[in-house]
Amino acid sequence: MSQLLEQLRKVVGEGNVVTGQAVHADYTHDETLTAAPVVPLALVLPGSTDEVSEVLTLAAEQRVPVVARGSGTGLSGAAVPRADGILLAFDRMRRIREIDTENQIAVVEPGVTLEQLDAELAPLGLIYPVSPGEQSGSLGGNVATNAGGMRAVRYGVTRHHVLGLEVVLADGRVLRTGGKFVKCSSGYDLTQLLIGSEGTLAVTTEVTVKLQPRFTQSSTVLAPFADLAQVAEAVPHIVHSGVDPSILEYVDVLVMAGITQAAGLDLGIPDDVKARTLAYLVVVLEGMEADRVDEDVQRLGTLLDQLGAIDVYVLPSTSGAQLIAARERAFFVGKAAGCDDLIDAVLPRASIPDYLARLAVLATEHGALVTGCGHIGDGNVHVTVFQPDDERRHALMHAAFELAVSSGGAISGEHGIGTAKLPYFLEMQDPVAVDLMRAIKQVFDPSGILGPERVLGVPLVGDGHGGRPA
Amino acid sequence: MSQLLEQLRKVVGEGNVVTGQAVHADYTHDETLTAAPVVPLALVLPGSTDEVSEVLTLAAEQRVPVVARGSGTGLSGAAVPRADGILLAFDRMRRIREIDTENQIAVVEPGVTLEQLDAELAPLGLIYPVSPGEQSGSLGGNVATNAGGMRAVRYGVTRHHVLGLEVVLADGRVLRTGGKFVKCSSGYDLTQLLIGSEGTLAVTTEVTVKLQPRFTQSSTVLAPFADLAQVAEAVPHIVHSGVDPSILEYVDVLVMAGITQAAGLDLGIPDDVKARTLAYLVVVLEGMEADRVDEDVQRLGTLLDQLGAIDVYVLPSTSGAQLIAARERAFFVGKAAGCDDLIDAVLPRASIPDYLARLAVLATEHGALVTGCGHIGDGNVHVTVFQPDDERRHALMHAAFELAVSSGGAISGEHGIGTAKLPYFLEMQDPVAVDLMRAIKQVFDPSGILGPERVLGVPLVGDGHGGRPA
Repeated sequence: MSQLLEQLRKVVGEGNVVTGQAVHADYTHDETLTAAPVVPLALVLPGSTDEVSEVLTLAAEQRVPVVARGSGTGLSGAAVPRADGILLAFDRMRRIREIDTENQIAVVEPGVTLEQLDAELAPLGLIYPVSPGEQSGSLGGNVATNAGGMRAVRYGVTRHHVLGLEVVLADGRVLRTGGKFVKCSSGYDLTQLLIGSEGTLAVTTEVTVKLQPRFTQSSTVLAPFADLAQVAEAVPHIVHSGVDPSILEYVDVLVMAGITQAAGLDLGIPDDVKARTLAYLVVVLEGMEADRVDEDVQRLGTLLDQLGAIDVYVLPSTSGAQLIAARERAFFVGKAAGCDDLIDAVLPRASIPDYLARLAVLATEHGALVTGCGHIGDGNVHVTVFQPDDERRHALMHAAFELAVSSGGAISGEHGIGTAKLPYFLEMQDPVAVDLMRAIKQVFDPSGILGPERVLGVPLVGDGHGGRPA
Repeated sequence: MSQLLEQLRKVVGEGNVVTGQAVHADYTHDETLTAAPVVPLALVLPGSTDEVSEVLTLAAEQRVPVVARGSGTGLSGAAVPRADGILLAFDRMRRIREIDTENQIAVVEPGVTLEQLDAELAPLGLIYPVSPGEQSGSLGGNVATNAGGMRAVRYGVTRHHVLGLEVVLADGRVLRTGGKFVKCSSGYDLTQLLIGSEGTLAVTTEVTVKLQPRFTQSSTVLAPFADLAQVAEAVPHIVHSGVDPSILEYVDVLVMAGITQAAGLDLGIPDDVKARTLAYLVVVLEGMEADRVDEDVQRLGTLLDQLGAIDVYVLPSTSGAQLIAARERAFFVGKAAGCDDLIDAVLPRASIPDYLARLAVLATEHGALVTGCGHIGDGNVHVTVFQPDDERRHALMHAAFELAVSSGGAISGEHGIGTAKLPYFLEMQDPVAVDLMRAIKQVFDPSGILGPERVLGVPLVGDGHGGRPA
């Protein structure tokens, strides 16, 4: 093993192979609530695609597992190290290689964070509109999980904005897919196959993304409702109205209390309204023309009124932005409050009222408290589960995922499967699909060194976990 | 072989297995200019997913190739029958299974055509916005080629609108992917892998697509320019301006003359303007509010003026719609004029002026006439090539594709590879990508019965074309 470390040091440089106590605690975990931290055999910090390629070649030869890590903001455990493996982190690959304003395209290394990219784009009047809650998330990590976030209702998710990838395969070969073009019908779309594969098919070393003009006008509307079902039922009407919101979130009263308190934010809602409110709808409208956004806000206000909102508040721009920032912190507020697990099921949009109502019943049955918020505009709920007893919580999670799947939805809308949702996924996913996914995994990574066990439960070959899946 | 026909008749019914002279000429070809018609061993018309499954099970057992065919509007030869194989056509699978207005989703059988779906959606105020030139195209065929079309500049292509598929695998197993939800991070995205695979991975039996509110206001702007480079250079400025056109096409003067003449359309452009024009830009702006569309048309007019347009014409709605319809017929006008081949390369948008200029030089060198139009807003050019000599034409096509690839583009933006572009694709595509694609093909279709030779040059196993690719 010391031979491997020596070889790795030769590839990436002495200081870029870190072991034992010297591995900072940040690298031992992601943000998954249910995964224990693990110190990797070696934290390896490559500085280039070539170095990644050499590291993977060594790992493949010696059958050493490799876990790739972006910023560690993941919520499904895919980036938690293995004690017997290499953790590849991209602290040294944070260059924005190109911002091509003519084609509205950026080319970045995997460690580039969303906030870093945005700081470069804002002065150019451009935006990369995918906005998962955590702006410290890396583009490499976003590709791995097909990250979504609040703006997905209008702009779609990561896979709708990535035009091309450079990745290193498990055997060290470098593959380039796609390019600086927005459409293509030239063979199978490997870019799309790689996006969302959570580090189990290849290691991303470069991401080419599509940008768009940055809106100059924005308005945030907050509408309290007396019950959650009304909020959920309002959503299809808003989507159909044509106002095309950039953000369309629901926040239940517990989450709203938590996030506004944590942010020290007073939205100026009268106490008598608060007292009657069980859930809020948060809508952000954006555009290039102030008068159009104002008009749409008026139209939305009338619609929300008709849909049963207790009142409609157009927030001043400062508190509007603060509310969105506070909403982005919802996970951390829940975590600080001691929540035990997270559900991010995705559903047909119109099935959400029923799903949330039935989930509330399930929670009661399992002695759990559930609070929620979520990207209701695209059918993705984020439910925080408080139930410290592992067995009772697992039973609730199982029932919640089963309900999502039987309602025509899927287990994860944007967080991924990783390790945290693996048993549920393998149980509830069509076995024909799992067979095909495992066979594809075998094509890309025959030794199973990339993210063993994650997503599909495929072990490292020869890892003593029993035979390979058929 | 008569035994197979007997078995097939048992599966789909006596009248739904057609052979020999009884096979209508329509089924022997698609619209590819360079592919000869072929009468299949048997035209088979399944009526259900189960029937497709039974047909494929028989085909796999007896190693009989299967080619799937939508409406035969393809332009790359993927749907041309094999003389030794089954042609699966979907004339009996043309049901719209569901239009879910609440979720804005349609579920259709593969034989449903775009015009058929649109006729159902229009009264509901909904639209499936993907609009490849030919409205008689089927949804199954659109999925196979990842069809694009004029509206892709705003809405994206087929893969951005398909949420789920039901397909039958080569061994007869049925696979369902995705569902009535707009995002998902639950395992590899098999939906995206299947889209654009041109019938070589599985046979599509159901397509779930996302719909959106149908715009009520539309305006068509026509701007003549004195040269093609100016048109191409104008495009990024229009994209950046934020007016968000639904259609952004260039049409060169030869194509414009051809399509307006064929349609008997007089756009009212003065002769002295026509005389100075080498290319036109056609822009359609759409929205829900007439005053906003009008405002945007004004803004666009000013911009086009600054960008060097000879003049700017806002077409009356009738002739606007007629011009778009005429543009959709450009391929057929070219065909009637005797064109010999088509290029639909896709490029970084800003590389188009240079590409077209260099292509004109190449055409001269190869004694060919090239005329063009195309989805310039998304970097997809459609160039019609007149050069009847096979050798000289192949040399030009080769040079044109090589130029596209070396300019950072790809061989096909929306028509696909099929058989027509296969040699160019295999020569110019990254061999690592081709290796992976062939291995994925092997996973889905180990006997190689689905669309043998198409896209990747993988023969039917035991077909005497030499060994399988590694």
